[in-house]
Amino acid sequence: MTLQEDLIIRQRRVQEAIRNAGYDACILATAPNIYYLTGIVYSGFLYLPVQGEAVHFVRRPVNVGLERAVYIRKPEQIADELLVRPANVMLETDVLSYTTCRRLLAGLGLAEAGDASTMLRRVRSIKTPFEIAQIRHNAQIHKAFHEAIPSLFCTGMTDLEFQIELERKMRQLGSIGYFYAYGENMAIFMGSVLTGDNAQTPSPYDFALGGAGATPLLPIGASGEPILPGRIIMVDMAGNYTPLLTDVSRVYACGEAPDIARKAHSVSIEICNAMLASAKSGTACAELWEQAMSIVRREKLEQYFMGTKQQARFVGHGVGLEINEPPVMTPKSKEVLEVGTVFAYEPKFVIPGIGAAGIENTYLVTDSGIEKLTDIEENIIQLA
Amino acid sequence: MTLQEDLIIRQRRVQEAIRNAGYDACILATAPNIYYLTGIVYSGFLYLPVQGEAVHFVRRPVNVGLERAVYIRKPEQIADELLVRPANVMLETDVLSYTTCRRLLAGLGLAEAGDASTMLRRVRSIKTPFEIAQIRHNAQIHKAFHEAIPSLFCTGMTDLEFQIELERKMRQLGSIGYFYAYGENMAIFMGSVLTGDNAQTPSPYDFALGGAGATPLLPIGASGEPILPGRIIMVDMAGNYTPLLTDVSRVYACGEAPDIARKAHSVSIEICNAMLASAKSGTACAELWEQAMSIVRREKLEQYFMGTKQQARFVGHGVGLEINEPPVMTPKSKEVLEVGTVFAYEPKFVIPGIGAAGIENTYLVTDSGIEKLTDIEENIIQLA
Repeated sequence: MTLQEDLIIRQRRVQEAIRNAGYDACILATAPNIYYLTGIVYSGFLYLPVQGEAVHFVRRPVNVGLERAVYIRKPEQIADELLVRPANVMLETDVLSYTTCRRLLAGLGLAEAGDASTMLRRVRSIKTPFEIAQIRHNAQIHKAFHEAIPSLFCTGMTDLEFQIELERKMRQLGSIGYFYAYGENMAIFMGSVLTGDNAQTPSPYDFALGGAGATPLLPIGASGEPILPGRIIMVDMAGNYTPLLTDVSRVYACGEAPDIARKAHSVSIEICNAMLASAKSGTACAELWEQAMSIVRREKLEQYFMGTKQQARFVGHGVGLEINEPPVMTPKSKEVLEVGTVFAYEPKFVIPGIGAAGIENTYLVTDSGIEKLTDIEENIIQLA
Repeated sequence: MTLQEDLIIRQRRVQEAIRNAGYDACILATAPNIYYLTGIVYSGFLYLPVQGEAVHFVRRPVNVGLERAVYIRKPEQIADELLVRPANVMLETDVLSYTTCRRLLAGLGLAEAGDASTMLRRVRSIKTPFEIAQIRHNAQIHKAFHEAIPSLFCTGMTDLEFQIELERKMRQLGSIGYFYAYGENMAIFMGSVLTGDNAQTPSPYDFALGGAGATPLLPIGASGEPILPGRIIMVDMAGNYTPLLTDVSRVYACGEAPDIARKAHSVSIEICNAMLASAKSGTACAELWEQAMSIVRREKLEQYFMGTKQQARFVGHGVGLEINEPPVMTPKSKEVLEVGTVFAYEPKFVIPGIGAAGIENTYLVTDSGIEKLTDIEENIIQLA
């Protein structure tokens, strides 16, 4: 299977979703969706009719190297170039700007748009064999990264100093650095390293945990907190070594980890193993939240689960070209696991004064159950 | 002057702009604009009436620490909470999603929105004394970064290997890593290092130069190109050490820089000095493009100016909380320099087979002319 062959499968899937939604076409403009259907990123609009071939309305770069590329300067030009205008169209209404959507619609003489954002997210949530191979490769590099971490720690470091060394190692292993997150008001730099009380700090973003960050302009993750003996350090750095991400968290300890941290950590592993043993294609995502909560309640750890001052109400999420894909394991989720779903599962505990405990792995739903893609030591690793 | 005092000045400026546009209020949701008016980032909506105090409609974090904070889950709740509903409103229509803008408007019973994106960008383009002090501080760190660069180079490095060491140094100097860029389809990781023929590669983004990048998912900048003797390396890494950015490019050489590169570089310095000597408050930005082009034409360097295969049609741009602010120095710009404008000026040349030459500095428009904020060695620095 080559990328070119896979792109044909992806296009057919999107066209089937357009048909099922009752639309004539979709127009895509965001990098993850353009990449999903072309294997490259361009500035412009990908016009995909329910039947037939995509047309690429490109602003930049010159010589984009795609068949059926038409150079445009304004979205209004799309209507002029189309041989057949669609009677209705889906746009990335949840992400693309009000102005751009309105200009696209006005150009086509349409009043309303279908929701291509959600449609593409649903299609992309079921990974192709080609994508799964990329994720497997990514997981191998993510493992090598975690194996290198103990050698990067020096006594006396702050969380930020530690994170800077981790970032460098990730980049040396081929991380593209930047990672794509879906939605408005989402920003993070390469991932998050949390220790001590900073793990309790609420953040504006819809990530599992918080942290004050190094600046009020990016209030998430490491804050310059010293890594002190008796504290634990959660390393939740995205694996973006291939276009398809893996999401992994592991916990390191400065000196010996306190009992409460070790207990919470082992409960997190138990929750993951319970999911691994019981979940399969067809399992409701809300059920996975309930399963996790029942173990958390049994262990009386509710006050620490997914934060303290601000507690996230999800325990897992899809992962792919973006770090936050569907499905989401929330109490009210209507989604179910399907064969080909790739998801991160991250039952975590924030222990005041100590740090964040628990693991996160990336899993694949197969014909026969759940496969753990990120096979990396799960116990707390003592650094010094 | 403290941040809190400065926030009052900023709010008054935005309210004056709302009044001049003939609106009752604006609602802001993007991080740079929320930060501009509060000094923090939250997820939610900042409601600023033309007169009176802002109300913060917050989704996250808990305990946001602002006066007049109202917790909401949906944009529709804003209308319920307001004592007086606006008769019209400005939204960030160029950036905020179609769905969110429609929900905000529907909640308020309005059909149309004014353009708060452009309004805020215009207000923010004139920096306050507090912001200028931050930029001055930032420029000092940017200088220290460039002074450290020669010690980070090793013979035989690729552009990516070199960039990874530069990224680490920047982070150690306090760079927040992530940087904010305005608009759809804009992404980059910390900045760009270009050498050899990779400098010619067109990119989809609206940055001055291109580069293939390390992956088709982020096609900009360093690509793994070896840094060979006789090649030059342009380092264009954003200075985000304070919330207010400085934008600087400098050129390093592996061995001796070829004559054509040295000539182009000195022409770039000449263009910057010509701008510095002649520009002042009131100067038309289009005139600065023309001034640059007249020197480029005199030197017969048109074919290399701002790229080869794809040539950017601007030579400078405002810089602040985002890397790409107004004004923009293009042939058709209607903007003029004003006292308090901070802008980057970057006449650059791409030399096939060699790399990118030229400098970029960040400048401030003062009462008496133009002040160069980034006082860093401008000549090509030989690395090995």
